[in-house]
Amino acid sequence: MTTALSPLAPKSYPPMPAIDGVRLATAAAGIKYKNRTDVMMMVFDEKAAVAGLFTRSKCPSAPVDFCRANLPSGKAKVLVVNSGNANAFTGKKGAAATSMTAKMAAEVAGCGEDEVYLASTGVIGEPLDASKFGGVLTGMAGEAKADFWLEAAKAIMTTDTYPKVATRGAEIDGVAVTLNGMAKGAGMIAPDMATMLSFIATDAAIAAPALQALLSEGVGQSFNAVTVDSDTSTSDTVLAFATGKAPGQDEIADASDPRLDDFRAALHALMKDLALQVVRDGEGARKMVTVNVTGAEDDRAANVIARSIANSPLVKTAVAGEDANWGRVVMAVGKAGEKADRDRLAIWFGDIRVAVDGERDPDYSEAHTSAVMREQDITIRADLGIGSGQATVYTCDLTKEYVAINGDYRS
Amino acid sequence: MTTALSPLAPKSYPPMPAIDGVRLATAAAGIKYKNRTDVMMMVFDEKAAVAGLFTRSKCPSAPVDFCRANLPSGKAKVLVVNSGNANAFTGKKGAAATSMTAKMAAEVAGCGEDEVYLASTGVIGEPLDASKFGGVLTGMAGEAKADFWLEAAKAIMTTDTYPKVATRGAEIDGVAVTLNGMAKGAGMIAPDMATMLSFIATDAAIAAPALQALLSEGVGQSFNAVTVDSDTSTSDTVLAFATGKAPGQDEIADASDPRLDDFRAALHALMKDLALQVVRDGEGARKMVTVNVTGAEDDRAANVIARSIANSPLVKTAVAGEDANWGRVVMAVGKAGEKADRDRLAIWFGDIRVAVDGERDPDYSEAHTSAVMREQDITIRADLGIGSGQATVYTCDLTKEYVAINGDYRS
Repeated sequence: MTTALSPLAPKSYPPMPAIDGVRLATAAAGIKYKNRTDVMMMVFDEKAAVAGLFTRSKCPSAPVDFCRANLPSGKAKVLVVNSGNANAFTGKKGAAATSMTAKMAAEVAGCGEDEVYLASTGVIGEPLDASKFGGVLTGMAGEAKADFWLEAAKAIMTTDTYPKVATRGAEIDGVAVTLNGMAKGAGMIAPDMATMLSFIATDAAIAAPALQALLSEGVGQSFNAVTVDSDTSTSDTVLAFATGKAPGQDEIADASDPRLDDFRAALHALMKDLALQVVRDGEGARKMVTVNVTGAEDDRAANVIARSIANSPLVKTAVAGEDANWGRVVMAVGKAGEKADRDRLAIWFGDIRVAVDGERDPDYSEAHTSAVMREQDITIRADLGIGSGQATVYTCDLTKEYVAINGDYRS
Repeated sequence: MTTALSPLAPKSYPPMPAIDGVRLATAAAGIKYKNRTDVMMMVFDEKAAVAGLFTRSKCPSAPVDFCRANLPSGKAKVLVVNSGNANAFTGKKGAAATSMTAKMAAEVAGCGEDEVYLASTGVIGEPLDASKFGGVLTGMAGEAKADFWLEAAKAIMTTDTYPKVATRGAEIDGVAVTLNGMAKGAGMIAPDMATMLSFIATDAAIAAPALQALLSEGVGQSFNAVTVDSDTSTSDTVLAFATGKAPGQDEIADASDPRLDDFRAALHALMKDLALQVVRDGEGARKMVTVNVTGAEDDRAANVIARSIANSPLVKTAVAGEDANWGRVVMAVGKAGEKADRDRLAIWFGDIRVAVDGERDPDYSEAHTSAVMREQDITIRADLGIGSGQATVYTCDLTKEYVAINGDYRS
C-alpha cells in the first residue's frame, strides 16, 4: 500500500476553531493498524441536533443500520468512529458489535443508546471486535477537547494520504456561528454518497429537521458530485450536529427561514470543500478532473452523461497519460444512453475546444492541448447542443498506483 | 503500447474450413499502422443474406450509420473493414468517406452500393482518408480466396494481441453446413455490444429475417455478456452472412423452424466462443473472470448485479492482486440497486464458499481460496437467496498494463 502523499494534497491546513459544545478525542485501539490512532470520539456537552445521510447500498454496514434507526429522535450526545474495520457484512455479529459499542459509549457519555452515533470504515466482512473499544472509551471521554479537529480527522483515515478538514463562518440573525467538518475517503468512492465518512459540527441552533433539510440540499453538489472509481461503499455516512451554543441565537425550526441563507451557503461550501478534498486524495490520483456537461436535454440527463465521462476507465487513463483523447469523451457521451446528437456535440479540454459540430475542431492545436493536459487540474467540458441541462462532476485520473493500491489492500 | 501476447490466448487456432461462396483478402493500405495489413475484404460469389447488430451508442460511427441504412435490403455482396481509424465522430467527412468507400467497393464487386457493408476500428475523431482504399480494393477482389480466415482476422486487429477465429458445423434438414467467424476486440469493451467487430459467414440457406432473429437471440449470452472496462464503443458491429451454397439445402425463411435447431445451437456457440476470445484478450488481462449470479429477483436483476460485479474496478483489481476480497463483491451487489438481502447473500470464489448468511463462512480457508485466486480462470458466484433469477457475465482483471496501454494509446 502506498503511503506517498497525494500530489493534489492541500499545501496547508486551515486553523480549525473550537465549536462551542463539541469536544474530540482519539485513541489507538489496535483494531487493525499499528502505531496510529484508529478511534475518534466526538462528544457533545449537551445533546445536539443531528442530521444524517447514508449510502444507498442495498447491503449497508451495521453502523449505517444503527444510525438510521437512531436518527428520528434527532438528538446526539456522542459519536464514535473507528478505522481499520467497516463492520460491514458481518451478519448478526455486526449488530452485536454496534450494540455493544453503543452501550459502552452511552455509559461514558451519560446518555441513552439512541443518542449514540457510530461509523466504521476499513475492511468489509471481518468481524469487528468491539471489546477493543472497552479499554479506550472512558479515557477518551475524559481527555476530549475542543481544539482537536485535525488529529480527529487523522484517526478516521484508511488509505487516505492526508487528513481532510474544513471550516466556515456564517451569520444567523446577526449572530456569528462556526461550522467545522472532517472527512475521509480515498477508495470505493462514487455518487450515492462517496465512500466517505464526513462529520460536520456547528454551534448554530437549528432544529434537527431543518438541519436535515439543509444537509440533504447540499449533497447533490458536493458528496454526490464526486466519483473516484464508480464503486459505492456499504458505509457512506455524513452526519451533521448543531450544538446550539452560539450565544443569543434563537433556534431556527424551518429550513426555508431566510435567516438561514448565509448558514446554508456556508454549509454547502463546507460540504463541497470536503468532497473535493476526497477526490483530490482518490487512490493513486495524480490529476483532478472537473467534468462539466452543458446543453443536455435537462439537468438529470447532464448528470448521467457527466458521470459516464467521469467514470469511464478509458477517459481516466487518457488523463493519466496526459492524452487529450477526446474521442473517448465522445464514446462516454454515446454510451450514457441519454439524448445526444453527434453532429451538435462540442468538447473542450481546459479552454481549448477540440471538437465541434461532430468533428475535430479545425482550429485546435495539439500542442496547446498537450500543455493543458500536463496541468494538475483538468477541466473536460462537453456541450450537447440540444437543451439547457447542465451538471458538474468531480473525479481523478486512473493510474497504475490505483491498481497497485487495490491489488493488495487486504494482504 | 504492449505487444506481448495475452497469457489467456488460445494455445492453437482451429483449422478454418472454406465457406462455399465466401472469399477473403487483406491489404496494407497504410491507414495508420506500418508493416501490417489493415484492410480486410469479404466478398460473396453471389449475393448473401445478411443480418446485423450494432452499438447502442448515441454517437455511432459513420460505418454503423451506413450499415444500418443498408440492412433492410437483406442482401450483401461485399464487406470492407479497416483497422487504424474508426471513422467515428468525423462529421460530414465521415459520411463522405463511407460513401466514397462504398462506391469503390461496389464497383470492384459488381453490385449496388446498398449491397456493400463497411466497418472501421481504431482511433476516434480522426478523418479517414478513404482514397487509400482506392489503391487496394481492385487487387483484393482479384486475389480473394476461401482459405484465408486467420489472415483476415489479423488485418482487423487493433490492440488485440491475437487474431480471433472460430468455426462450427451443423446440420439443417440432413445437409451439413459450416459456420465461420472472426472478431476483434481488446479495449472499449462493454455490453450493449462489446467494442467489437465480428463477422460470421455460413453456407447455409437462411433468409435474412430468420438470420437476423437467430443472431439477435444469441447476443445476450455472447457479445452482450462480456465486459472489459464498461466502456462502449461507437463502432460495435456484428454481421452475419448466409451464402446459401450448401448443396441441396432449401432456404429456410422462419427462425422458429425446427430444422434450424442444430444451426441455432452452433451459431450461438460460435458467437460465445468469439466473445470469450475477446474477453481473454482484454487490454492488460492476466485473468479471465466468470461472474455468475443466482437467486436474484429475476434474470434482469441478476444481469444488473452481475455487470455491477464485473465492472467494479475494486473487484477487478482484487482479482489482479489474487486477493479473495469478497467484501468488494458485497459492495458491488449493494451498489447495483437491485433487490438484495444482506443476510441471505452467499459468495463463492471457484467452489469455495467464502461468505454465507450475510457474513464470512466459518468453514472457509484463506489458504484454499488463495490457491483458487492464483488460477488463470476465476469464477465468482453470488447467490442472492431471494428468487430464481440468474445471469452470467464474463470479464477480465484490471491490471497496471490496462492503464499503461490506455494512457498512451493515441501517442
